[in-house]
Amino acid sequence: MTPPVVVRALGSALLLLGLGLCLPTAAARKTTEPPEWTVPKEDTDSPYGSLWPLPQTVRFDGECYRLNQGRFQILHSSTSTATVGCGILDDAFRRYFGYIFSSSYRTTHRRPVSSGPEDKEKSAPVPEMLQLQVTVTWKDPECDKYPSVTSNEAYEIHVSKLGATLKAETVWGALRGLETFSQLVYEDDYDTHLINKTDIIDFPRFTHRGILIDSSRHYLPVEVILQTLDAMSFNKFNVLHWHIVDDQSFPYQSITFPELSQQGAYHPVTHIYTASDVKEIIEYARLRGVRVIPEFDTPGHTQSWGKGQADLLTQCYNGEEPSRTFGPVNPAVNTTFGFMTKLFKEISRTFPDDYIHLGGDEVDFSCWRSNPTVKQFMESHGFGTDYRKLESFYIQSVLDIVSANRKGYMIWQEVFDNGVKLKLDTIVHVWKGNTAQYQKELATATAAGFHVLISSPWYLNRIAYGQDWQQIYKVEPRNFTGTAAQKKLVIGGEACLWGEYVDGTNLTPRLWPRASAVGERLWSQENVTVLGDAYSRLTKHRCRMIRRGIPAEPMFVGHCAYEYKG
Amino acid sequence: MTPPVVVRALGSALLLLGLGLCLPTAAARKTTEPPEWTVPKEDTDSPYGSLWPLPQTVRFDGECYRLNQGRFQILHSSTSTATVGCGILDDAFRRYFGYIFSSSYRTTHRRPVSSGPEDKEKSAPVPEMLQLQVTVTWKDPECDKYPSVTSNEAYEIHVSKLGATLKAETVWGALRGLETFSQLVYEDDYDTHLINKTDIIDFPRFTHRGILIDSSRHYLPVEVILQTLDAMSFNKFNVLHWHIVDDQSFPYQSITFPELSQQGAYHPVTHIYTASDVKEIIEYARLRGVRVIPEFDTPGHTQSWGKGQADLLTQCYNGEEPSRTFGPVNPAVNTTFGFMTKLFKEISRTFPDDYIHLGGDEVDFSCWRSNPTVKQFMESHGFGTDYRKLESFYIQSVLDIVSANRKGYMIWQEVFDNGVKLKLDTIVHVWKGNTAQYQKELATATAAGFHVLISSPWYLNRIAYGQDWQQIYKVEPRNFTGTAAQKKLVIGGEACLWGEYVDGTNLTPRLWPRASAVGERLWSQENVTVLGDAYSRLTKHRCRMIRRGIPAEPMFVGHCAYEYKG
Repeated sequence: MTPPVVVRALGSALLLLGLGLCLPTAAARKTTEPPEWTVPKEDTDSPYGSLWPLPQTVRFDGECYRLNQGRFQILHSSTSTATVGCGILDDAFRRYFGYIFSSSYRTTHRRPVSSGPEDKEKSAPVPEMLQLQVTVTWKDPECDKYPSVTSNEAYEIHVSKLGATLKAETVWGALRGLETFSQLVYEDDYDTHLINKTDIIDFPRFTHRGILIDSSRHYLPVEVILQTLDAMSFNKFNVLHWHIVDDQSFPYQSITFPELSQQGAYHPVTHIYTASDVKEIIEYARLRGVRVIPEFDTPGHTQSWGKGQADLLTQCYNGEEPSRTFGPVNPAVNTTFGFMTKLFKEISRTFPDDYIHLGGDEVDFSCWRSNPTVKQFMESHGFGTDYRKLESFYIQSVLDIVSANRKGYMIWQEVFDNGVKLKLDTIVHVWKGNTAQYQKELATATAAGFHVLISSPWYLNRIAYGQDWQQIYKVEPRNFTGTAAQKKLVIGGEACLWGEYVDGTNLTPRLWPRASAVGERLWSQENVTVLGDAYSRLTKHRCRMIRRGIPAEPMFVGHCAYEYKG
Repeated sequence: MTPPVVVRALGSALLLLGLGLCLPTAAARKTTEPPEWTVPKEDTDSPYGSLWPLPQTVRFDGECYRLNQGRFQILHSSTSTATVGCGILDDAFRRYFGYIFSSSYRTTHRRPVSSGPEDKEKSAPVPEMLQLQVTVTWKDPECDKYPSVTSNEAYEIHVSKLGATLKAETVWGALRGLETFSQLVYEDDYDTHLINKTDIIDFPRFTHRGILIDSSRHYLPVEVILQTLDAMSFNKFNVLHWHIVDDQSFPYQSITFPELSQQGAYHPVTHIYTASDVKEIIEYARLRGVRVIPEFDTPGHTQSWGKGQADLLTQCYNGEEPSRTFGPVNPAVNTTFGFMTKLFKEISRTFPDDYIHLGGDEVDFSCWRSNPTVKQFMESHGFGTDYRKLESFYIQSVLDIVSANRKGYMIWQEVFDNGVKLKLDTIVHVWKGNTAQYQKELATATAAGFHVLISSPWYLNRIAYGQDWQQIYKVEPRNFTGTAAQKKLVIGGEACLWGEYVDGTNLTPRLWPRASAVGERLWSQENVTVLGDAYSRLTKHRCRMIRRGIPAEPMFVGHCAYEYKG
C-alpha cells in the first residue's frame, strides 16, 4: 500500500474566501487543531463538521456549492479503469446517492431568520455542483474481487468550482471515499444540499478494523447482520469477525456435516445460517469493502458440536465411570482430524477470505485429565502430565489442516501463550487482561514476530452507565514497550460484542455509536484524541446513522433532526 | 377494593386427571411451591408456565382444550353489565384475540416425535374450547371512565370443559384478566393452540405500579410511548409517569402558553407533543387500563421553561451584576403564580387523572441567594437565610393552585424532607439513597402519615453488565421498620428510565424485561421471590413480548421461537 503524500499544513487565508456564501456550519470553518474540550458540549461544533472517522488530512474552504437531486450525478470518470458494469461501484453510486439526498447531516441549530439563503442570494448566488467523478487508477480495479488484508483503501477527494473528484487505486478506496463524500454534504435550514470547497487525502492508520459478532449465544437474524454491515461501512470498518458457533448453538449449516446444525442449532430450520444466507452476508459485506472472517473456535467452546457429531468431544469421567458431561474436542482419536479436515475444507471454500479465526481460547483441561484414552495418548506421545502439550498437538494439527487449504489463521492469545508453534504470518488476537496486562502481551507477541490484533479494551458487551465511549476512544493500540518494528506488527483491532446478553432486540443500539469510537481510533491519525471535538462530530454522525436506518443510541442529552421511531 | 377470597391450597389429586391428553408443557404441571433454583436454567420450566406477573392464586390441571381460530370467540356474557358497545372491552377482545392466535407462547423444546397429537388422539380426543365469556358485575362497568387509584383490578378466570369465564367487577379487572387468559394459551409443536383446565383468582398487591419515562432529555416519538404502553399492559403496570419537561427541553405544547414549546422544545414542530398527541396517548393508555400522570417539575429543573416565559426563572447574580445564567423559578414575583395558576389549570384539564406529579426535587439555592429581589423577599417574609422556607413557600403556593383544580399531587421526597406542609393525601415519591437510606425514608414518610411510592432501587437507566434484573426483582417495598399501618401506606412504586442516555433507539430493550421484574414485585404475592422460577417464566414472557412486537432484550443465552429481526 502506497499512501499518498500527506498535506497537513493548511492555508488559513483560504478560510476567508467565500465566507457569507454558505451557511456558517461547522463544515465551513477550519482550525489547524481542534479545540481542547474536556466537557463535551453539543452546541460547540467541531471544525470538521460531521466527519467520522476523521480523515488523515482535511482542508476546508468557506466557498460552497449546491447539489440538485434531479441533476447531480456520481459517475465513472473517463480516465477510470472502472467503468459502468463495475458492480461494486455501480451499487455504491446508487447507495450513496440515496444517502446524500435522504440522509445528509441536517443542521439542528436554529439560525437567525436573516441568515436564510434568500439573503445570501442577494449578495451572490451559490454555484451548483453537478457531478462527482470517480477515478480508479489501478489496471485491475478489483470490481469482482474480495477485499483482503492488503487492499488499498486510500483515496483523495477534491471539491472545487471545477467539480468534485474522488480518486483511488482500487474500488476499496473508492468505497471509503464515497462514504466521506456523503459526510461532506449537509443541508441548510431550507433543505438545500450544500458541499464546501474541500481537499481530503485519506487512508487508514490500521489495516484490520473489525467488529466481532456472536451468533451462538443468541441467533442473530440475517437482517441484523446486514444492518451491522451497513453501520460498519459508515464507520469505515473492514472486517466482520463472525464468531458463528460456540457451546450454546451451532447455527452454521454445513453441507458436509448437516447434523451439526440439525442437532446443534437452537432450531434446525429457523435458527441456522444456510449456505445461501452465508453467501448473501459475504456478498453484502464485499459490496461495502468488508471482509468476513468466520471463527470456528476449537478445541474448547464446542459443546454444541457434540450434539451432531458423535465421539468428537472428550467423554469426561467421574473416577472410573463415564459421567454425563463432555469436554473439549478429543485430540486422542484419529476420527477427530478426519472430521476437521473435511469441515475446514468446506469452510475454506465457503468463506473466501484469506484468513480463518481458529479460536483456541479458554481450554479447560480437567475433562481431558479424567479420560483414560486421553491419558493413554498423553503417555504414548510423551506429554507427561503437561496438557498444554496436548493442546499444542491439537492446535498444530488444525493449523496444518487450515494451511493445507491455503488459508492464514488468527488465534486467541492463549494459543501463543501456551507455546504452540505458529507460522510467522499467524495473527495473535489479544483479548485478556487490564491495560498493563494487554500491553505486556502486545509487547511479548510482537517481540516474537507475530502480527497482533487488540480487543482487550474493546469488549463492548460490557456495558456501563454513562459516557463509556470516552474510555473506548482513549485507547492507543501502539502504546506498549517495544521497537518501531514491533509497533508496526499491530495491524489493528476489533470491537467485540459477545452475545450472552445481546440479540436482534438490542445489538445495534448497544454497538453504535460505541463501536464508532473504535472505528476512529483505528482509522484516524494517532493524535486525533480530543474528546470534545470527537463528541461534536460523533453526535452528528450518530444522527446521520439514524437517518440511514441504524438505531444508534444517544451519547448524552440532545436530539436529532430526525429521531428513530422504532 | 374488596379482593376475592384467596384459595391457595391445591388439590394434588387434580394433577393426575387427564394427563396424557395434553402436551407436557410447564403449564400442565403444578407444584405447591416453586423449586429453589439459584442458578437459572433455561431448560427447567416453571410449573407456572409463562405467567407473568404471577397471579395471586393459580390452580392448573392436566386436562386441556383446543382453540380454533375460526371458531373461538371472546364475548360479553349474558349477565355482564358491559355489553357490545363497551368500547374498552370491544377493543380489548379484538386485541387479545390477535395475541392469542398470533403470539401465544410457543414451546421451544424439542419433543420426541411420538408425543405428537396424532398419538394422543388415538388415546382420547382433546375437546375444543369455543368461548371466553367475560362478565363485568358492577352496575357501572366503567366503559367510558378513566382508571384511577381506586380502580378495582381484581378478576377470576375459570377454564373447564364447561367453558372459559372471566369475571371482574369492572372493565379494569377484565383487562388484567384478558392479559392473563392470553398467557394461559400455548402452542404445541403442531401449532395447535391449547389451554389447560385452570382456576385463577387474582388482584394486585400494590395499587400504583408505574413506569417513569423522560421526554425532556431526549424527545420520545409518540410511537415509542405507545409501544411502552403496550408493554406495560403485558406486565400489568397501571401508571405512566410522564416526566414530560425538564431543563433540557419543553416538548409539551401548551395552548395557554404556546411559546413554552415554541422556544423551549428541541424543535418547535417536530419535537413537541401537541394536544392531539397527548390525547392519543391518554386514550391509548386508558384502553389498556393505564393512568397517565404528567410531571411538571418545579421550581428546579426548569431551564427550558425560561426560554418561552420571560421573568419566570430567577436571574442569577455575580456579586452586584446579573450573570448570564438563570436559576429555579422565581418565587419572589407575583407573575410567577399567575403563570402557574393558568398553566396548571390547563394541565388539569388536559390530563384527566386525579393526580399530578409536581416534582420539587434537587432545588439549588445558590441562584436564589445571589438575587437581590429574592433576598428582599426573604427578609420581608421573615425567612431569614433559610432558603428551605422559600422553597416551602413556593411549593405550598403551587400545591394550593393544584388543589384548587381538584387534583391530588405527588412530589419527590425532598419536598417532604424539607418540611413543606403537605395535605395528608399527598404521595411522597422516594427516589434517593441506598437500601438503608430509602428504607429509613419510607419509615419516616409513612410515620408522618403519607402515602409513599418507591423508586430508589428501580432506576433502570442505571445499566450494568449481567443479570441485573435479579437485584431489581429482590426488592421488597415493605421491608422497613414500621407498623402494619405504615406498611399499608406504601401504595406501590415506579421503575424509572431517565432519559440522559435513552431515546427511541434504545428505550424499549433497555426497559424490558428489566421493568417486568418490578411489575411482578408490585403485582404478585410477597413470597413470590424464587429467582429460578422467575427466570423460567420471564424468559418465556420476553419471547411473548417479542412476538407482540416489543424488542425486549435477552436475559441470558438462549433463544425464542420467533426472534426480533429489527
